[in-house]
Amino acid sequence: MTRFDTVVTGGTLVIPHVGEVRGDVGVRDGRIVTLADDLSRADADVRVDASGKVVLPGAVDSHFHLGIYNDLATDTETETTSSLVGGVTSVISYFRTGQHYLNRTGPYREIFPEVLATVAGRAKVDYAFHLAPMTAEHIGEIPWLVDEMGVTSFKYYMFYKGFNLASSSADAKSYTMSENYDLGHLFEIMEAVAAAQAERPGKRLSVSLHCEQAELMRVFIERAKKDPTVSGLAEYSAGRPPLTERLAIEEAGVLADATKVNLNLLHLSSQVALETAVELAARYPGMDVNREVTLHHLALDHETLDARGGLGGKVNPPIRTKRDNEALWEGVRRGWVGTVASDHACCMEAEKGGHGATEVWPAQPGFGGTALLYPVMLSEGVHKRGIPLTRVAELVSAKPAQTFGLFGRKGTIAVGADADLAVVDMDLEQVVTTELCQSAQDHCPFEGETVKGWPVTTLVRGVPVYENGKVAADSPGQYLKRG
Amino acid sequence: MTRFDTVVTGGTLVIPHVGEVRGDVGVRDGRIVTLADDLSRADADVRVDASGKVVLPGAVDSHFHLGIYNDLATDTETETTSSLVGGVTSVISYFRTGQHYLNRTGPYREIFPEVLATVAGRAKVDYAFHLAPMTAEHIGEIPWLVDEMGVTSFKYYMFYKGFNLASSSADAKSYTMSENYDLGHLFEIMEAVAAAQAERPGKRLSVSLHCEQAELMRVFIERAKKDPTVSGLAEYSAGRPPLTERLAIEEAGVLADATKVNLNLLHLSSQVALETAVELAARYPGMDVNREVTLHHLALDHETLDARGGLGGKVNPPIRTKRDNEALWEGVRRGWVGTVASDHACCMEAEKGGHGATEVWPAQPGFGGTALLYPVMLSEGVHKRGIPLTRVAELVSAKPAQTFGLFGRKGTIAVGADADLAVVDMDLEQVVTTELCQSAQDHCPFEGETVKGWPVTTLVRGVPVYENGKVAADSPGQYLKRG
Amino acid sequence: MTRFDTVVTGGTLVIPHVGEVRGDVGVRDGRIVTLADDLSRADADVRVDASGKVVLPGAVDSHFHLGIYNDLATDTETETTSSLVGGVTSVISYFRTGQHYLNRTGPYREIFPEVLATVAGRAKVDYAFHLAPMTAEHIGEIPWLVDEMGVTSFKYYMFYKGFNLASSSADAKSYTMSENYDLGHLFEIMEAVAAAQAERPGKRLSVSLHCEQAELMRVFIERAKKDPTVSGLAEYSAGRPPLTERLAIEEAGVLADATKVNLNLLHLSSQVALETAVELAARYPGMDVNREVTLHHLALDHETLDARGGLGGKVNPPIRTKRDNEALWEGVRRGWVGTVASDHACCMEAEKGGHGATEVWPAQPGFGGTALLYPVMLSEGVHKRGIPLTRVAELVSAKPAQTFGLFGRKGTIAVGADADLAVVDMDLEQVVTTELCQSAQDHCPFEGETVKGWPVTTLVRGVPVYENGKVAADSPGQYLKRG
Amino acid sequence: MTRFDTVVTGGTLVIPHVGEVRGDVGVRDGRIVTLADDLSRADADVRVDASGKVVLPGAVDSHFHLGIYNDLATDTETETTSSLVGGVTSVISYFRTGQHYLNRTGPYREIFPEVLATVAGRAKVDYAFHLAPMTAEHIGEIPWLVDEMGVTSFKYYMFYKGFNLASSSADAKSYTMSENYDLGHLFEIMEAVAAAQAERPGKRLSVSLHCEQAELMRVFIERAKKDPTVSGLAEYSAGRPPLTERLAIEEAGVLADATKVNLNLLHLSSQVALETAVELAARYPGMDVNREVTLHHLALDHETLDARGGLGGKVNPPIRTKRDNEALWEGVRRGWVGTVASDHACCMEAEKGGHGATEVWPAQPGFGGTALLYPVMLSEGVHKRGIPLTRVAELVSAKPAQTFGLFGRKGTIAVGADADLAVVDMDLEQVVTTELCQSAQDHCPFEGETVKGWPVTTLVRGVPVYENGKVAADSPGQYLKRG
Repeated sequence: MTRFDTVVTGGTLVIPHVGEVRGDVGVRDGRIVTLADDLSRADADVRVDASGKVVLPGAVDSHFHLGIYNDLATDTETETTSSLVGGVTSVISYFRTGQHYLNRTGPYREIFPEVLATVAGRAKVDYAFHLAPMTAEHIGEIPWLVDEMGVTSFKYYMFYKGFNLASSSADAKSYTMSENYDLGHLFEIMEAVAAAQAERPGKRLSVSLHCEQAELMRVFIERAKKDPTVSGLAEYSAGRPPLTERLAIEEAGVLADATKVNLNLLHLSSQVALETAVELAARYPGMDVNREVTLHHLALDHETLDARGGLGGKVNPPIRTKRDNEALWEGVRRGWVGTVASDHACCMEAEKGGHGATEVWPAQPGFGGTALLYPVMLSEGVHKRGIPLTRVAELVSAKPAQTFGLFGRKGTIAVGADADLAVVDMDLEQVVTTELCQSAQDHCPFEGETVKGWPVTTLVRGVPVYENGKVAADSPGQYLKRG
Repeated sequence: MTRFDTVVTGGTLVIPHVGEVRGDVGVRDGRIVTLADDLSRADADVRVDASGKVVLPGAVDSHFHLGIYNDLATDTETETTSSLVGGVTSVISYFRTGQHYLNRTGPYREIFPEVLATVAGRAKVDYAFHLAPMTAEHIGEIPWLVDEMGVTSFKYYMFYKGFNLASSSADAKSYTMSENYDLGHLFEIMEAVAAAQAERPGKRLSVSLHCEQAELMRVFIERAKKDPTVSGLAEYSAGRPPLTERLAIEEAGVLADATKVNLNLLHLSSQVALETAVELAARYPGMDVNREVTLHHLALDHETLDARGGLGGKVNPPIRTKRDNEALWEGVRRGWVGTVASDHACCMEAEKGGHGATEVWPAQPGFGGTALLYPVMLSEGVHKRGIPLTRVAELVSAKPAQTFGLFGRKGTIAVGADADLAVVDMDLEQVVTTELCQSAQDHCPFEGETVKGWPVTTLVRGVPVYENGKVAADSPGQYLKRG
Repeated sequence: MTRFDTVVTGGTLVIPHVGEVRGDVGVRDGRIVTLADDLSRADADVRVDASGKVVLPGAVDSHFHLGIYNDLATDTETETTSSLVGGVTSVISYFRTGQHYLNRTGPYREIFPEVLATVAGRAKVDYAFHLAPMTAEHIGEIPWLVDEMGVTSFKYYMFYKGFNLASSSADAKSYTMSENYDLGHLFEIMEAVAAAQAERPGKRLSVSLHCEQAELMRVFIERAKKDPTVSGLAEYSAGRPPLTERLAIEEAGVLADATKVNLNLLHLSSQVALETAVELAARYPGMDVNREVTLHHLALDHETLDARGGLGGKVNPPIRTKRDNEALWEGVRRGWVGTVASDHACCMEAEKGGHGATEVWPAQPGFGGTALLYPVMLSEGVHKRGIPLTRVAELVSAKPAQTFGLFGRKGTIAVGADADLAVVDMDLEQVVTTELCQSAQDHCPFEGETVKGWPVTTLVRGVPVYENGKVAADSPGQYLKRG
Repeated sequence: MTRFDTVVTGGTLVIPHVGEVRGDVGVRDGRIVTLADDLSRADADVRVDASGKVVLPGAVDSHFHLGIYNDLATDTETETTSSLVGGVTSVISYFRTGQHYLNRTGPYREIFPEVLATVAGRAKVDYAFHLAPMTAEHIGEIPWLVDEMGVTSFKYYMFYKGFNLASSSADAKSYTMSENYDLGHLFEIMEAVAAAQAERPGKRLSVSLHCEQAELMRVFIERAKKDPTVSGLAEYSAGRPPLTERLAIEEAGVLADATKVNLNLLHLSSQVALETAVELAARYPGMDVNREVTLHHLALDHETLDARGGLGGKVNPPIRTKRDNEALWEGVRRGWVGTVASDHACCMEAEKGGHGATEVWPAQPGFGGTALLYPVMLSEGVHKRGIPLTRVAELVSAKPAQTFGLFGRKGTIAVGADADLAVVDMDLEQVVTTELCQSAQDHCPFEGETVKGWPVTTLVRGVPVYENGKVAADSPGQYLKRG
């Protein structure tokens, strides 16, 4: 008789692009081997009772920053722990040379194996990396990275041309540790990725873009700093207004059309940015563009955060207005948004000038959110705005997996797929606290928000590593070669 | 121990939007109850060995014409038999009042129950109906049709304003048996469907359009008739050139934008038509437009057919050129095509003037193709052009089901879904003959084509009603209420 | 020493595309032979003192309907008299077969010479004709009309497909006396004009369109008639709403792009219509489109007219709202409007059901406005909205002349040009009355409007045929062969 | 009896936007006081016989570089002499701080009066200046420059962000002598010009752009330098390909739309550049964009020049291909090109590495062309391609005058306008030589071209300063305050 390592029974399966299905899941050797109407009496070592719950594919948090501010090894442990809280079972983290991260430069042939070695055995969830070709040498490494290392997505930061990460310094060269980090460099990345793509038709290779235009930012930052009527996160948004996103997106669009590369437009923060990105696709009908938004650009606004005080919510691009929140939700509704991610970066309050700091420019940007990926999408999306559950699963699981070469293994609930599952109690309501997120981060911009719909069990390859707030001791996360 | 009515074992499941998965299928009471890595030893009444085969979701042939030229009862039996050959397990057939079909007019409250009664118990596959509101009275019946009869899609024939079906007569009024069958009528249909949609947010209600503009057709038909250099299907295409499609699509686009209705643009036959339809969506970013192409517009060209002789290939819109075939395949590749259907209409050679007829204008248009839906898509799409299998399953099964309100039950392979499956031998190569199609039709425009990739078993709700060319005696098809 | 027949001295010349210039004009044999800083002491038979006045090129009223409701001979006399009041020195009148006008059909080879013979010797101003090819035979006459008769513009009435002029009858065939008066016919006109154009590169041949879509009109007219909340001109506008213009313009755009013909979009009445026409040009960058608006769509709104009562203001397309007025003025400001004309049609109150009539559908559409062409443009455009004088001269004189093949002779103030001049007192303010317009028409929709800026002298080919309200006895108007 | 200083008799006047008119011109005090059919017997001090000739408005060469490489005083004398040969009677020269020109920086309040003092009394033709705000201080001077100095157009050089003029150095800062010469700076210029415009509705204030994107240039220059298969002007074009223009134009378009400023897109050199500029206008319907092309981008191609040898033809943007030439002429024909200018910069062969030099990168860009402005446009445009004479007069005279605030005084032939005239023998054919151009420049890229249609007399404010190759000794040129 059939034997399973784990069965998940009694729940409603939310299968991306398929729908909500009453079904049980049987797991063996980390993979789903059976989907069935009733496995309640099946022979299994571990039984997860999902009665009255929904069973979602584990989220693929495709925008993550392991080790950006903290020791990479430690960050991997603490922050992927936080992921489990949010039903996240895979993260795709950014890595680059230059300041922050390992604070050095050099070829990825040298550095990337070190990164993998450091991370190995420490992650609670599976993980992959997007890499940023910072130098000409890196561009030359792209085919090797694709074929040997399983890296299929390459990032360019449009504002590093003129600023460091906090935009507290315009000495971009020492920040990137690179010679010519500009649109010419981007063009060469795009050409290289498009050329690699042409020879590997079965994969989706792509260029991911942080779209804020540095030269315009300079002007608006100068103005914001001089303007006595703005402060805090409002000042930060004024210094990097949506027009800087719009210009950056248009620049990227011209180059992508010229090179015929696949694009991911990351963390579109504003109505203007999203609309520009949509117009781009309409203008260039053959262009493959994924549009990403983050949890915080959907759910937070600077008016509310500034009223609470503190600079915890400083992030790039900045938190915008309630109006932008709604425009992004409308984009979700219309299918204009492809993926939703957390852009998780564990950034302690000390990095932001300490508790009660008010000077926004020196503060470091970024914060954690992976613990809230499913909860906020379910609460704000499904409960408040009527977005279908299946659509949420597509936004945070299936589409990120498809976009970044993990689909099949990740991103769905199917026989043969990894048994990455989030068992969610749609009725569980909790107020967000720093502790609840289980990150190393000592503050949380979402703190105080009432959120309804939380994972009660998160399974990574069939193992329930998170149950009712408890995280298992071991770190089963494996590196995901993509393609 | 688990018992199944049927198991399908050893095959590769092709799950739309999920991918190709090695898996077995367990069926009980017509539904899939288990998907598993191995059911070879499961207890089952019927076992289908799919080893070395692919198992596709049964095709949903969403463009069909039961009873248009023949007795509805008979047509239902013979033509859904033909569907089984092509791996089709559901058909959505058009019905309307006016000439052809039942050759009468009257309210659908009266006529549609008759239609359902006639068809009941005779179909080999499940079936639903699109209805065409021909009169003002019909428009008033839309909410009833949606709520009570499960009809969610409503057709308008743009060229009936000026012509009968064969375009052999311009007495459009006696053909439609309607007062004002024009763009004003279309506007009123669109308004009514949009209003019904607004009150039923969970459903997709839509207007389906046959896009050929009658007033332009008049001019080109006159010219084609006078032109001694064209004859046969080339003459027919010259008389209804792509410009007539383009104008019709643009007209429809304005009205759809004004009313905010969901659109299905049917059987786009030419590069011009497809490009116009794509531009439309780019111009009106919020518009929900499904673009359909047929098997014959993908696979047949008038030069080849005219060289073979005969008028069997007369159809609306006309068969175009090889160049148009390739443009439509390119549209498939780019994701511009939503659904592929057969536009099956059993039309005997006698309707076309008899064997060897040469006068194209009096001939009736249309022919069967449902028997070739999967085979031609697999042969021309997968084998010849490298279209992924999963994409083919989306085009003929998942997307038609989604577009027309059947998804979940139909259009996928999932626990809980109807066990409608096509077990396909991807290596089986056969030359198309009239006999092989098992339709009542006495000719076949695809005759002589070598096609690779054929269903060997077709299961309707778990029952293998078609096996290796043999069709079961009973007619299990049921009416599908949609929504 | 130089001798002139006439000199106009002391004024400011308003020269289209050149500007306002202090200068005197010397005329001999009907033509301007001298423009000079000072001809005050020149030898001349006739002296016109323009001191303190502006001297504009006589307006070319390019939308006119001589003889549509009244005897052509009489209409010519009375209505071109009215033109002189408005500073109009040339009219381009529409003529067609079918009901109204001569109320017959037949080839233009036969009928058009009759028209010219009837008009000859009766017009107070120079005149030309646009012709409407109503039948296939007429289309064949286009080259002859261009080359022999000097007709370069050809009209199609998009709503005659479904309605007569008043939209009181849907028996379009007896109205047009034509077989196939539809978009197919329009396509054939466009092809013929484009073909003629290709062989005559020095000329601008064009198709002029009345853009209202008949099939939509049917629906809205039925609704307006049933709607108890609207009446009068508001009801008329509701029955032919801007959407009917939009659809008609889009239809025309597709056909014009397909045939590559030059277009004139006549009397765009609404914001929607103007914006659609602007988008059309943006979509098809090579397309030559002139956008015309009328005086009454700029200056009248149905709310005001309905408050006054009466159906005098019924016209096609209908009078719209104040908001549309301002959108059209904004179009003037942005350069989106090419030409402004009166669409003058002398339509007695009896034609509209008599004084105090309230039934809008049986009333005939149209009214006179030529007497107000310069006055209203100067008053509403220059005085109220700051439109430059030169721009007004371009809109009503230069651009109509360029668009319709009269420029050089007409439309400017230059040596060699016909001495057609309007000497205008920019400070003269008068309240519009029926009498003041000097038309045969017994009412006036502009009645009661205070208008500032009136011609005090109008010269046709150097002869002051209108001075301070007095019209000369003779009728010097000549037929203008165009090209 | 009327007395004139000068009369020009017997010619055909070419009046922009009016047409070709047989007429004589009477001049008094530098202005046209009479245009008449016959002044042959008028009393005049100077008589110019234009029988059999055409009389064009003196060209307004709106793209000029006085003193860029040579002493400003000397350059003014020699290069405006060359202008007379080409029928040019006004030049609008660029001036900026930074390297070249006066090789210094500082406020325009200080420097611009010096420039005017240096030039005063030395020019053979009237002159104005476009200024480039290189520093934040300059942006603050815009209102003063407009109101007090009559400067209405402000230039930004998009490639100075990364390169010096020759693109031989990437030390852009020492070249511009400016802090932040980037798109942020451009945005601030645009804002300032738009703000100044809003308060001065009667004027056209505008931003002029040299559109080549520096960051892309870097990449292509590196590649071109390494590519052994290209050299000379072909290498230069490869190093600054049309894609750099396209990206720059798109960047500028976003900023212009955001600020609502009027744009002049200078010297569009390629089909790609022109088409991008046309699409921009279609995308932003309210945007006021003038598109300029130069004589050399219309008439020269790098294949021909490289075959002749030498680097005389190095210029920014580079000379392109014959195919681009024809695309630009097609743009002229369609009305997409607003103005044509010479981009005259007297650049001695020594600046380009000496005779026979082959290293393209160190060579200075630019060369003279003002002497050929009318000749080449008449020869290549009118004679070879059938462009109407009037259109040529619009491109080089009327439209530059309108665009840059000189119209009325300059750019037309009208009573009251300056009597700046070019009397042209349309049949005179000459082979271009360096001597014939009468510039100080010791070579000429147009050398050897046979050109038909040359000025025989050029009059500046009524004085024939150039006759049959002889230039008058005095320098009547005056500074033109614009607005």
